Amino acid sequence: MSKIEICFSPALINQYVKKDSVVVVTDVFRASTTICTAFANGAKSIIPVESQQEAIDYKAKGYLTGAERKVARCDFADFGNSPFEYTPDKVSGKEIVLTTSNGTRAIKAASDCFLLLIGAFVNLRAVAERCQKESRDVLIVCAGWKDRICVEDSLFAGALTSCLLEDDRFQAASDGTRIAVSLWHHANKDFNKYMMKSEHAQRLLAGGFEDDLNYCLKQSIFDVVPELNGNKLIYDKSDRIEKRELEEALVD
Amino acid sequence: MSKIEICFSPALINQYVKKDSVVVVTDVFRASTTICTAFANGAKSIIPVESQQEAIDYKAKGYLTGAERKVARCDFADFGNSPFEYTPDKVSGKEIVLTTSNGTRAIKAASDCFLLLIGAFVNLRAVAERCQKESRDVLIVCAGWKDRICVEDSLFAGALTSCLLEDDRFQAASDGTRIAVSLWHHANKDFNKYMMKSEHAQRLLAGGFEDDLNYCLKQSIFDVVPELNGNKLIYDKSDRIEKRELEEALVD
Repeated sequence: MSKIEICFSPALINQYVKKDSVVVVTDVFRASTTICTAFANGAKSIIPVESQQEAIDYKAKGYLTGAERKVARCDFADFGNSPFEYTPDKVSGKEIVLTTSNGTRAIKAASDCFLLLIGAFVNLRAVAERCQKESRDVLIVCAGWKDRICVEDSLFAGALTSCLLEDDRFQAASDGTRIAVSLWHHANKDFNKYMMKSEHAQRLLAGGFEDDLNYCLKQSIFDVVPELNGNKLIYDKSDRIEKRELEEALVD
Repeated sequence: MSKIEICFSPALINQYVKKDSVVVVTDVFRASTTICTAFANGAKSIIPVESQQEAIDYKAKGYLTGAERKVARCDFADFGNSPFEYTPDKVSGKEIVLTTSNGTRAIKAASDCFLLLIGAFVNLRAVAERCQKESRDVLIVCAGWKDRICVEDSLFAGALTSCLLEDDRFQAASDGTRIAVSLWHHANKDFNKYMMKSEHAQRLLAGGFEDDLNYCLKQSIFDVVPELNGNKLIYDKSDRIEKRELEEALVD
């Protein structure tokens, strides 16, 4: 049986086993939705970095750069954190460096694992299927907001857990998974309304990002599942699992 | 308006403002239920300590000592963490030193606040009324389990928030409070069953503590509200608020 665990804040990451697990990092509003969109629009890779300075250094080397703080685009950057900015004409075939307030931090905190995937409502079904293929324990890491628990990431964790539990090889391992699934069942009666009341939704609305919010609520519109490869997120349609099994066999 | 906040794990305490707030620490299974019971049975004070060594040192000085690790009583101690051990004949008029796996740690982590109260289902209504009297922001701190989020403390946080929101001077301040209230409404349809499935309930059942569990689920059976005074928990029926206001007036 594969166990499903949820880490509701990057500050709690050390309480969870991740080394042998598939980790799904989510930052629904908006980093993980934006990353999925960039790959759906043809981006070659995304390099997540924690600090603005790292992003500035990459920009000086000629990289396209996305950077957001306090919901707004940083002045030096080519993009902010809105999925609508990452259009095919701008990102297709490109390597992009990205730093956001919470999402890229969560990726760094969770990166020492078997396989790190990026999940959001826009690729919910695809990321569930990828976890099912891997047949390993799954740890869902919520980016939260300044290490605090947030509604939208917790709800995604509940939704992904519910999808995985349809497969009887998976089991909810902990109180955290039960809490998230209960929340998902409770909120799903009026999903959009529940999400729109979240603290970060209110911040984004105040910043004029209502279209972004509506977009982030769309479910399973992409079959893209970004994964971490070294220091880069990539999305490779070829069968990564077989490739890795081959590599493991060669090591043995 | 007084804001209600919830800290789901002691490891997240620095993300929350507590200095000017009333903090309610909860460890439903079982420390906070046991503390309320000891005071209801006449205990004079309880000194929460983090380590077993501190408890051993107090015992050498002649104190009655409660100590629990991994659900069992520590060999050196007079009591474990079962509320049934703290009977009137043993605790009435006594000072007791207490160390438990999670609860006493949470008290220490949260102690730098305006007023620290102990809450559990057994004193739910009384602790809500005390918060209403104080008319300040409220931070509910869940002891959790080894810094992980747990069902029973999160549900208590939701229940207490729901009580407080009946008073329109209080508002849910954050995503955390919404999550806990949603969980409370969801689980309350079959409260006992939901609680009994929690990870820690399962540990206690395996340890033979089914009676303790059933007891911890009782709601508002005591009007006792233990509060921290220096390094001791006390329960003083006299009006503590007026006393403190007087002290503040004297300082001014």
